[in-house]
Amino acid sequence: MKALVLYYSRTGVTEKMARTIAQSLQEEGISVDLFNVTQFPLETLPSYDLIVVGSPTYYGTMAAEVKKFLDESVRFHGDLEGRIGGAFASSANPAGGNETTVLSILEALLIHGMVVKGMSEGSHYGPVAIEEFDRRAEEECRTYARELARLTKALRPGKEGQ
Amino acid sequence: MKALVLYYSRTGVTEKMARTIAQSLQEEGISVDLFNVTQFPLETLPSYDLIVVGSPTYYGTMAAEVKKFLDESVRFHGDLEGRIGGAFASSANPAGGNETTVLSILEALLIHGMVVKGMSEGSHYGPVAIEEFDRRAEEECRTYARELARLTKALRPGKEGQ
Amino acid sequence: MKALVLYYSRTGVTEKMARTIAQSLQEEGISVDLFNVTQFPLETLPSYDLIVVGSPTYYGTMAAEVKKFLDESVRFHGDLEGRIGGAFASSANPAGGNETTVLSILEALLIHGMVVKGMSEGSHYGPVAIEEFDRRAEEECRTYARELARLTKALRPGKEGQ
Amino acid sequence: MKALVLYYSRTGVTEKMARTIAQSLQEEGISVDLFNVTQFPLETLPSYDLIVVGSPTYYGTMAAEVKKFLDESVRFHGDLEGRIGGAFASSANPAGGNETTVLSILEALLIHGMVVKGMSEGSHYGPVAIEEFDRRAEEECRTYARELARLTKALRPGKEGQ
Repeated sequence: MKALVLYYSRTGVTEKMARTIAQSLQEEGISVDLFNVTQFPLETLPSYDLIVVGSPTYYGTMAAEVKKFLDESVRFHGDLEGRIGGAFASSANPAGGNETTVLSILEALLIHGMVVKGMSEGSHYGPVAIEEFDRRAEEECRTYARELARLTKALRPGKEGQ
Repeated sequence: MKALVLYYSRTGVTEKMARTIAQSLQEEGISVDLFNVTQFPLETLPSYDLIVVGSPTYYGTMAAEVKKFLDESVRFHGDLEGRIGGAFASSANPAGGNETTVLSILEALLIHGMVVKGMSEGSHYGPVAIEEFDRRAEEECRTYARELARLTKALRPGKEGQ
Repeated sequence: MKALVLYYSRTGVTEKMARTIAQSLQEEGISVDLFNVTQFPLETLPSYDLIVVGSPTYYGTMAAEVKKFLDESVRFHGDLEGRIGGAFASSANPAGGNETTVLSILEALLIHGMVVKGMSEGSHYGPVAIEEFDRRAEEECRTYARELARLTKALRPGKEGQ
Repeated sequence: MKALVLYYSRTGVTEKMARTIAQSLQEEGISVDLFNVTQFPLETLPSYDLIVVGSPTYYGTMAAEVKKFLDESVRFHGDLEGRIGGAFASSANPAGGNETTVLSILEALLIHGMVVKGMSEGSHYGPVAIEEFDRRAEEECRTYARELARLTKALRPGKEGQ
């Protein structure tokens, strides 16, 4: 099983979220590649079982750099059917668009035919950091990673041990 | 494995979608309960592995009757973690709010901690009927039901054969 | 010029927001009717120049009681073209769905053909209260009311002095 | 009064929508600048009373090229308060994300503090073209442009005749 964690970051907050999620996935026994989205080699996209994408919030949705990746991912449209997806976001203030940013990423993953999961506690659509990468955000990243790992193991079992 | 298909309908279009999804789930070997949302015995909600909710589109989102069910479902908040969810909608015209209606239902299911899946072809977030229950809508309902059945079998295997 | 402020509230937070907005509109010289949405006499809806609607956040969107009002407002569909609209929301936590709730109300108002306005500072789509009606929420309600009052005076000038 | 119509287009459909909106605004006596978003001189942004932005739909929201413009527009954050905004979109199929694309642009304009207007008939949030620039899409573009022109004249009257 292989996971991809992609992020874009200017202040470093989203990058810290990405690193925490990547580390937690590894602790669950999943092999992880971590990339700044601008440096990701797109042709490897279909090789991942789990794809988690994070972005700062600019004008209520993901950064253009993240959108560019999603637009280009059309090259593999259909190939990601049934894979597992996740999203996370950071923003400058509480009503700052975190939710709509996470949702806009999840919507793109659903259009790819992917499987996503909410959380009944905390930030329901995916981890969000407000202003800084504090303890709450860190805990959400860890919990979310664990849930995505469990989902990936359940849905891509044939991949285990390969 | 048990599935619940809930709908609200005035013109009958959403009800036809619900019946088609319910029938397709049964053909996949899943036991299905089908209810108009206003007649659903709420206390049975936690007994379902798969919950699929459909609504006509009124003012860009689900009907109040469907929202009432979701608001009352808070009684079981947390109990649906990891269950599988789906949504479908009908509307009067192409840019008539189908997508935002389906998304608003999916968002509620994600807040419950549920697992949802998109489709890389057709109506990506869930089946939509525009004006009438035509062949395209019927085909989307059948495909979606099959994909949800597969997801449910993969994620709730311990439930099979009980 | 006449404004309508509608709200639904269980804990009292959304009601406090509604009262603050109503009071601020009156201070701007606008006549205001304030109603719990469940007690609003629907037939008077077309008599308002400005309609502001607030709701607690339940499962990522407005309460069923508010949606019921919007669904029933279809009776006057078309009559509200060009009127001014606004929305506000409360929720239990920062990533608790405030934004999507405000947006879902604004979307319904746009479907009615109404005019809405964002705010470049604070909660951009409309005032939100997180957990409690604190100073920040109060200030946002006052600012928003003033901006809506200014917009209403500019767009419905023929109504002034009637 | 000055209007800006910005678009991104690959197949030409969104460009045709942009040209139609620009022409209709001119017929209403408003001076219009029309730009492919990738060629727009950003420093002129604050000089416009009305800003209308169109995009094809890629993965449920605006193209990265349009998002890049919005991200860079942060340079003028606050300067567009009270200006008038509009959005339009094209997509490949009926449930193809038109609505969510138009809404994602409108949300960005609201975050800028701008004023937007829905339409009680047709595509409620802004004109959408499905597959091609047909008669229906053309008519919607004309109607929308007329309504935005009226709104601009009402809200920026001091600007007339300058």
